[in-house]
Amino acid sequence: MRMDNKAYLVQMKSNGVHSRTRTLNAKGLPGNDIHYMSVNGSLCTTKTKSRRQRWEVKPSEMSKNTLNPIRAIVDGMKLVPNPEKPMISLSIGDPTVFGNLPTDATVLQAMKDAIDSHKYNGYAPSVGYLKSRQAVANFYSCPEAPLEAEDVVLTSGCSQAIELAINVLCNPGDNILVPRPGFSLYKTLAVSMGIEVKLYNLLPEKSWEIDLQHMESLIDERTSCLIVTNPSNPCGSVFSKDHLQKILKVASKLCVPILADEIYSDMVFPGCNSSSLASLSSNVPILSCGGLAKRWLVPGWRLGWILIHDRNNIFGSEIRQGLVKLTQRILGACTIVQGALESILNNTPQSFYSDTISFLKSNSEICFKELCSVPGLNPVMPSGAMYLMVGIEMDHYPDFKNDVDFTERLVTEQSVFCLPASAFEYPNFFRIVVTVPEELMLEACARIREFCQHYYRPPSCDGNDLDQ
Amino acid sequence: MRMDNKAYLVQMKSNGVHSRTRTLNAKGLPGNDIHYMSVNGSLCTTKTKSRRQRWEVKPSEMSKNTLNPIRAIVDGMKLVPNPEKPMISLSIGDPTVFGNLPTDATVLQAMKDAIDSHKYNGYAPSVGYLKSRQAVANFYSCPEAPLEAEDVVLTSGCSQAIELAINVLCNPGDNILVPRPGFSLYKTLAVSMGIEVKLYNLLPEKSWEIDLQHMESLIDERTSCLIVTNPSNPCGSVFSKDHLQKILKVASKLCVPILADEIYSDMVFPGCNSSSLASLSSNVPILSCGGLAKRWLVPGWRLGWILIHDRNNIFGSEIRQGLVKLTQRILGACTIVQGALESILNNTPQSFYSDTISFLKSNSEICFKELCSVPGLNPVMPSGAMYLMVGIEMDHYPDFKNDVDFTERLVTEQSVFCLPASAFEYPNFFRIVVTVPEELMLEACARIREFCQHYYRPPSCDGNDLDQ
Repeated sequence: MRMDNKAYLVQMKSNGVHSRTRTLNAKGLPGNDIHYMSVNGSLCTTKTKSRRQRWEVKPSEMSKNTLNPIRAIVDGMKLVPNPEKPMISLSIGDPTVFGNLPTDATVLQAMKDAIDSHKYNGYAPSVGYLKSRQAVANFYSCPEAPLEAEDVVLTSGCSQAIELAINVLCNPGDNILVPRPGFSLYKTLAVSMGIEVKLYNLLPEKSWEIDLQHMESLIDERTSCLIVTNPSNPCGSVFSKDHLQKILKVASKLCVPILADEIYSDMVFPGCNSSSLASLSSNVPILSCGGLAKRWLVPGWRLGWILIHDRNNIFGSEIRQGLVKLTQRILGACTIVQGALESILNNTPQSFYSDTISFLKSNSEICFKELCSVPGLNPVMPSGAMYLMVGIEMDHYPDFKNDVDFTERLVTEQSVFCLPASAFEYPNFFRIVVTVPEELMLEACARIREFCQHYYRPPSCDGNDLDQ
Repeated sequence: MRMDNKAYLVQMKSNGVHSRTRTLNAKGLPGNDIHYMSVNGSLCTTKTKSRRQRWEVKPSEMSKNTLNPIRAIVDGMKLVPNPEKPMISLSIGDPTVFGNLPTDATVLQAMKDAIDSHKYNGYAPSVGYLKSRQAVANFYSCPEAPLEAEDVVLTSGCSQAIELAINVLCNPGDNILVPRPGFSLYKTLAVSMGIEVKLYNLLPEKSWEIDLQHMESLIDERTSCLIVTNPSNPCGSVFSKDHLQKILKVASKLCVPILADEIYSDMVFPGCNSSSLASLSSNVPILSCGGLAKRWLVPGWRLGWILIHDRNNIFGSEIRQGLVKLTQRILGACTIVQGALESILNNTPQSFYSDTISFLKSNSEICFKELCSVPGLNPVMPSGAMYLMVGIEMDHYPDFKNDVDFTERLVTEQSVFCLPASAFEYPNFFRIVVTVPEELMLEACARIREFCQHYYRPPSCDGNDLDQ
């Protein structure tokens, strides 16, 4: 080949990461005696460095520190159902598992149209197609919180949206505030990144409102982000306008940006408030994370987004650029779903949304009503999302050590699996997913009742609540 | 609501991350005076901590350290094409941009079937559906390197595969070995994670084989991973069996696991070797990263995979578990594409693959032949993938400072955009993407010739090569 007859004059330039010393061989190529030093390192002239004598491949600290509390708890449970009763799993926040809540036909058609167009097979920009970002901006824009395409970053599911938001706002050693009970992913991500997690309390007796005084007491100068989940997983609660304004007031006073996990936005029962945090904020910078997963019932499709609300220019261009840079690491959502997004947002009929919500409300009411009359259980009626939390009066269940033990035995004896709320840092509650078909919800509640009636120990006669 | 009349006995348990001191209020709920301390912190009893007085939201160090050299270089270029000539972009490694290389009809049908099945809308396991992993294992298994489903992790594109592989193997302060010239993502990811990058040389005069002595000289005890890209982006080179075995020998001798970026695997011109690294390895543990992007011509779909080759059990269960944990951070590929994967792998006709390769080879030959006779350019004929590197004899182009300047002016004057190889740490080359339609390839080469003929300065008469 012609190549062999020519000299390759390769001019290397210093790139700021490594300093180099080199000799060029006859062809002007770097010779074999190049040594690379780390930044600010002195020049290396000898081969004294130590080398491995044997294999020792260990997983990284980050992988070891990536802990999924749900997996840790569930994997430790003996989940052997009663062979005489078919299993009813009320544990997974996936509305598709029972087949009773299909996504809308327009959503599926939008996907097929995107495929047939042959337009969405190549790389999209790392933040997503402009047209798709514009569609999200139009869908969520409101006069109080206007959005343009440039305020939207498309992501691989809401999980990546949350990951990017934490990643752009926080350094190792910072802390973030996270609700208790709360979605476990925040802690999983933060701890793996060396970020401290501070848990602020939600108050079940106030429909899971935030204990604002407690939350405020946790904030310090290393608090780089306040995570607010509304509507809530695992509580199914929805904050009032008044409460959202009080949260914003704390963030504003102590200058803490908000990561609003609004993946369940608009999944709110009729008559309840459905304001987004950003629509009520005058000055607090907010990264609102959402996606198609829950409202459109397609969690596997991995299409999420970050909405950047920054009317006072506090994030400024730096945070926006930081987000763009981070999206370039692995890119985001599948282009077919991105291509379908505009049609999904614009053409899904209103009846699809309202039918889903009606079903979730009805099932929640059934579950709440059934469990209210079970001795020793305290269900909390939700206002949205697809979950219902149930408190266990452990004093009246001396046979069980805790919520994990309680829910494990519920599987063994009644073949009903509810997630122990220890998985959400909230022991002695369990979470019920209310997306199951109505007849299964009724059957599950009946089995829970039978289980509780068997193990419940009433208060002792002298009025002392403790009968142990 | 019934809730208000009951006490909530919430038993908090220490979780090893925070220690706590707390008082319980009348209802047994934690009071507002809870303080959380970081690990090993002493108990905090006063509110003396400092708080922010004003907004100061800054992007994280990681986001600031996430640098995309291609963007950095391209964004700094004045890319204003000559208005009299339509733009021909040979810069982006996306085979779909010209529309002349559509994916196969069976691939699109597999997607539509997955949608119609209604089976792939929910969450998949974080490592991917078992059935889809099995399909990948079957597709890539060979007697020398057998694979089971458990050896496969599905990811959101090959980028996430590479990210996970680096992330599981490397800690901050470690170093990885990366080819020069090489795909820029390795450095982007590593630097953002605090991992040092050491560049080993590829030798253009040896069809871009690795300078093995140089590579070996860079390895030390903090070298946690050797990245080998084969076939190569940006070189289009394909290593012989003999060369692959020599690479493995170095890795084996110095006990360094390999990250094999094999996204272009099997995209090899007829008559060239197409062995995977793992098929030749007896003992070196290898994470092979691949995906649908290039061979199936759907880079936007974001379906990638890691194949875990570990016949001597050197990774062991720890690395496997580390990978599983890391996949739980944001989950992986879109479930529709996962659902279609088995059919895509099993039903795509052989003619589709061979037609693509024939086209790429033909276009490469055209480009190589045309540019071989251009004074001052040194094209290197590829053996696979979809790229061709061209050396610029800068001494003969005194009008240009470097490859960036050269390619920028090529846009301004000839409306042809080739990526300067500075983007691959290899100045004074440029990369041509050979996926364009043949007539555009010819037109582009003609324009490059015109450009070079205009600026080329021949050697001076005294035989001295330097005429400056």
